[in-house]
Order: sequence, then C-alpha cells, then structure tokens
Amino acid sequence: MSHNGAGVSEVTVRVPMNIALVKYWGKRDEQLILPLNDSISLTVDKLTAETTVRMIQAVGENTVEINGRRVELSSNKRYQTVFDEALRLQRKRKEDLNKNENECITHHFEVISKTNFPVAAGLASSAAGFAAIARAIQKILNLNDTQANRLARIGSGSACRSMFGGLVHWKKGEKEDGSDCVAVRTESENWPDLYCIILVFNDERKKVGSSEGMRRTRETSTLLKHRIEYVVPERIEQVKKAYESRNFQDLARVIMADSNQFHAVCLDSIPPIRYLNESSWRLIELVEKFNQQEVKAAYTFDAGPNACVIVQKYDVPAFIRTLLQDIIIPSEDLKSVEEELKVSFDCPSEINSPILCSKLIVSPMGGGPADS
Amino acid sequence: MSHNGAGVSEVTVRVPMNIALVKYWGKRDEQLILPLNDSISLTVDKLTAETTVRMIQAVGENTVEINGRRVELSSNKRYQTVFDEALRLQRKRKEDLNKNENECITHHFEVISKTNFPVAAGLASSAAGFAAIARAIQKILNLNDTQANRLARIGSGSACRSMFGGLVHWKKGEKEDGSDCVAVRTESENWPDLYCIILVFNDERKKVGSSEGMRRTRETSTLLKHRIEYVVPERIEQVKKAYESRNFQDLARVIMADSNQFHAVCLDSIPPIRYLNESSWRLIELVEKFNQQEVKAAYTFDAGPNACVIVQKYDVPAFIRTLLQDIIIPSEDLKSVEEELKVSFDCPSEINSPILCSKLIVSPMGGGPADS
Repeated sequence: MSHNGAGVSEVTVRVPMNIALVKYWGKRDEQLILPLNDSISLTVDKLTAETTVRMIQAVGENTVEINGRRVELSSNKRYQTVFDEALRLQRKRKEDLNKNENECITHHFEVISKTNFPVAAGLASSAAGFAAIARAIQKILNLNDTQANRLARIGSGSACRSMFGGLVHWKKGEKEDGSDCVAVRTESENWPDLYCIILVFNDERKKVGSSEGMRRTRETSTLLKHRIEYVVPERIEQVKKAYESRNFQDLARVIMADSNQFHAVCLDSIPPIRYLNESSWRLIELVEKFNQQEVKAAYTFDAGPNACVIVQKYDVPAFIRTLLQDIIIPSEDLKSVEEELKVSFDCPSEINSPILCSKLIVSPMGGGPADS
Repeated sequence: MSHNGAGVSEVTVRVPMNIALVKYWGKRDEQLILPLNDSISLTVDKLTAETTVRMIQAVGENTVEINGRRVELSSNKRYQTVFDEALRLQRKRKEDLNKNENECITHHFEVISKTNFPVAAGLASSAAGFAAIARAIQKILNLNDTQANRLARIGSGSACRSMFGGLVHWKKGEKEDGSDCVAVRTESENWPDLYCIILVFNDERKKVGSSEGMRRTRETSTLLKHRIEYVVPERIEQVKKAYESRNFQDLARVIMADSNQFHAVCLDSIPPIRYLNESSWRLIELVEKFNQQEVKAAYTFDAGPNACVIVQKYDVPAFIRTLLQDIIIPSEDLKSVEEELKVSFDCPSEINSPILCSKLIVSPMGGGPADS
C-alpha cells in the first residue's frame, strides 16, 4: 500500500474468479445479497482480476474502469453500495477508537481493474472484480476478513468466495443483518492436483441474467425449497469430506449432480430458464464417455452454456484428447496447453458435426488472492 | 363381437392415445406397473389404434401384428403378460360361477392393430395399442372397467388412461397388489373446445427409453420425492378444478409447469436425462410469445422432443399463424388443417433459421374409445 501526502491510499491486488461445486441460486435478501443456501467453491487460479483501488481524501467523483472502459456507475449501483459500506466501516472504526475527528472529511474512490479473460466470454468476471475491490479496500482500511467478505458480497454475491484459496464455504447465515453470512476457507489443506478445463461456447440466445433468474426460481419453482432445505446441506458435507479425503470420484459425483440440479430448478421455474445449449449437452456426453470406466472428470455449468470440467492434473492430457475427437479448439489455446503441460496433441483431420469452442483455458484451482 | 362355431371370439375397437397434463414418471412396482404418483390426462381423438383381437379356443401361438408387421413376442414380454392376465380373469369368473368345466381348455390370441399415425414418430403409440387390446378383451370376456383398466396398465402403464373420454385421473393407489390403482373418468363433463396441436420434431439422438428413464430418476433424483409427495397431489386438484370451471388460463399454467417439472426431474437424474431438443425449446419460446398478453396456449412434452400444444378451438388458427413465422410445416398437413377448420394460412416466403416440423396434427381432445 502506498500513501502520499495528499491523503491518497493506493493498493493493487490480483484475485481469481471461483467456480461453485455446490451452486448458489436464490437470495433470501436482495439488498444485502444473502443467499437462500450455502455454497462451496474453488478458485480458478489463472482467471484473475488485477485491480488497483485509490482512496482519495477529497471531494470527488467515484470512478471505475474495467479493461480500459469507464463503468457507468449510475446504472451499476453495486459499486456505490460497496464504497458507501467501506466509508461506513471506516467511520465506525474511528468511532470505536474514540477518534472524533472532523466528521466532514470526505473520500472518493478510483478503481482500475483488468481481467485476463474477456468479460464478454460469459465467465463470472464480476465475482473476481468485486472480490478484488473488497480485497484492496480491506488492505487500505485494515479491515478484518468478515468485514472484507461482506464488502465483496454486497458487490456481487459469489465474490465473497474469491477472497481465499483452498476449498471455500459460503455460509448463508440466519441473521437478517447478514452478520453471520460469510465465506470461510475450510480446514482442508489445498488440493493442488485439481485442475479445471474451461470451454467457452458462444451463444446467441438472450440470456436470463442471474439476478433475474434467481428471483424467478425463488418465486415460482416448487422444487427449490426442497433443494435448499434437504439436498444442499448434505452435499456441502459430501464435498468437504471428499475434498478432505482426496476422494476424487465422490467429489466429482456431487459436483455433476449439483450442476444438474441447479439447471433442473431453473427448468422448474415459470417461465422455464435454460442455460445449457447443444454444445453444453455434447460436452456432458463427452464427460460421460470419458468416465465410463472410472469417474475421472466432473462437469459443472453456471448460468450460461460454458463448461468447467474438473480433473486431476495427470488426467488433463487424456481428457483434452477426448475433447479433440468432437470439439474444435482454437489452436493457440491448444498450443499454450501443450507448452505448459509438455505434451502434444494430434487433432483429427476431420470431425463430424463438431462442437465449436471459442476459448479453452486450463488452470490449477484453489489458489488465493495475491497482493502486490 | 362375433363368435363362430369353432370357439373364436373377435372384437374390433378404436382407442385414442392420451396426453398427460400432470405427468406420470416413476414406478412403485415395475412388474405390475404401479406408478409413484397420480397423473391426469386427455385423449387425442384423432390419433388412434384400431385393433382386432381374436380369442381362439384352441392350442396355438399368440400373435401380434402392428401396422402390418409381426411383433416378436419373446422380446416384448408385455403382450404375454396381458394375455395371461386375461385368461386368469376368465378362469376366475368361471370359478366364481361354479362352472367347473374342463380345466384343460386352452386359448390363444391374435391381435391385429393399425395406428393412424407413424409409430416411429415418437408419439406414445404403445399406450393406445395396449388400451385397444384391453378394451377388445374387455368386450370378449365381459370384464368390468377395473379389470380392463388393469389389463391395459400391465401392458403399458399410461394405456389405462386411454380407456375413457373426458378428463381421466389415474390414481396411483396404495395397495401392493395394485387393486386400487385405476384410471377413472372424472365427473367433469367433457370440454369439447380443447384442441391439441402436435408437432413432430425429428431427432437423431439416442433416446433414453421411458422405463429406463423412470428407473434412473427414481433411483437417483433427490427432487423426485418432493414432486411426488407435495407437488403432484396439488396439481391434480388444480387441473380438475380448472377443467371443471372451464378456466383455460389456470389449466394451461399447470400443464406447462408440470411438463417443465417432469423434464427438470429428468435433468436431476444421474446421469441426466434430456428429452427436449433445440426445436422443443424454440416451440416453448413461441408459446411464450403467443401468451404474452393472455395465456391462450399450453405446451407439454412427453419423453421426447415432440410438442403437444393445447389451445381452445377458436385459437387454433391464430396459433398456427404464430407457428408459421418460425416453423416449416409440411404443406399437406397444413392443407388438411385449412380444409377442416375452413381457414387459410399464408406461409412467409422466407424464415430465418427455421424449425423443421415433420408432422403437424390438429385434433380435438377428450373423446373416448369406440367399438365397431
């Protein structure tokens, strides 16, 4: 962190996005972004938002720039919510310390964020972005983890799961003020062999946004309540246990079942919500084929058609070979995987009715944020 | 019915297929075909199986011919089950009447069935077929409705819903022997204005058969139990009430919600089962568009991609005009609808990314079987 004489604090952090293994779907409080159920996730080390936050002690306008483009804050209220909460926490700490300084001191924030993956790819970039802002403000204001977690969450719910490495458990909490709604790193040591292979499938369909989708499912699905009350709690425990004991097969089975159930409650909504497209389903079939002898891969899909397939590091080449039988993958993406894993792939000369993948990303999982 | 001196009884009947408004999915007894939940249906008057059953008092081989092709009974055990049950009922009646005639009298059956729609179209032809066999045997042996119902059901579960006109309620029953598992015609008078528009979409995917699909869902879906215990009973009542009071909007809402939920529990199965394809989803979107101002159409999908859209008779032309904006419909099918409804349709000269429909059927609903 740097300070200068003019009352400017500046911090730069790099924070990864995360993928839920048991999905978050439905809010119990829209304003505070309190979820209806617990979720559990791993970060994707290679997909990060690098974000610089400047807190400036002067009258001025808050600004946010993402990948070189200015964000219109009047239509993205979440940023203001985060800045307001940050200033409230600062005031509160001063009061706690009995520092009744000049109450009229004002601040504003400047945020400059860069993601190393296209925001338009439909990967959950806002989670990494808000987590990075929260992390940077945590450093500037010396907040504790719970405060920083809240800051991330009120920006973008699942952002609070990007604040730690390892297996992260976002607890829904019970309290109305959200004070017991926090993401925590589970006690399990990180499992560095877990890799994810992300496949971006383009989609022309108009997508139901996740806030709107969650609202619709909560209001209309007759299955969601059962999922929340009975299914999710058990699955959270299953994931923790499988992760702790390094039981990949058990972990994979829960991951796939929960991805499917999330899409099932979407389909049970009125009108039905559909995120999986033909490419997603083809990928599901490829994973089933790959798993025929032994479960070695787990697919999971968020609110869109893109697939995230979790495998152990030594299975990455075999899985990519399976993909290449049916999927056309951009050659530059394939080349960078070859270089990194020191393997080489043969692409079949012709594929019948191929699936087109516009981006392939292979990444270790479970790394945490980094401060620079 | 005709008898001849050589101990041959012959009956010909015509029985319609039926479409469930609240879906049957999952068996509590595979052998007796007892369902896990109630279902409720309407027949599709125009799609029928015309079936002749000959019961011959002589040693001989049972034979079944469907649309001119001999069915291999050794790999279609259900026919034998039905014939055995029919003979058991006959023996039982003779015992009841104290007719201790020659116990050694043997019989065999000859079945000749014709459906007026292609079996390969993926429409539930086996339900109409087995219902017709049960209906014919009912006439030959003078069985009561409950006995005939059981006969149809052990052939093909949902066949028991094709035994009546009007709104038909198949009660799952509680007893292990299936004696309280029967389909009954509800007390509501038939609603002759209800029409269905069936769209056959071709599909190359290998389909999970409904018996296998039901088994998978029962064994692996964590949502099915909730559906069965809490959702279905309420929906059965909602359908009855809406049908009785001729409230089309309420009826339509339940029909669509239950179709979606059936496909949701399929997706919640392990591995996930998918029956809806791209064409099915395009049709869903078309219905949503058509319903924007007022709910005037309800889609429902069985274990396949083909759509059945229920509308009131006077909305049929408007709905077909909506279809024609995005779907290419065989011109002979369209012509026969024009002639029947005395309307004419304009086909747009060009459609962007059209949906291909290989067969369009427009039919009144709720008619019952006919004996000839």
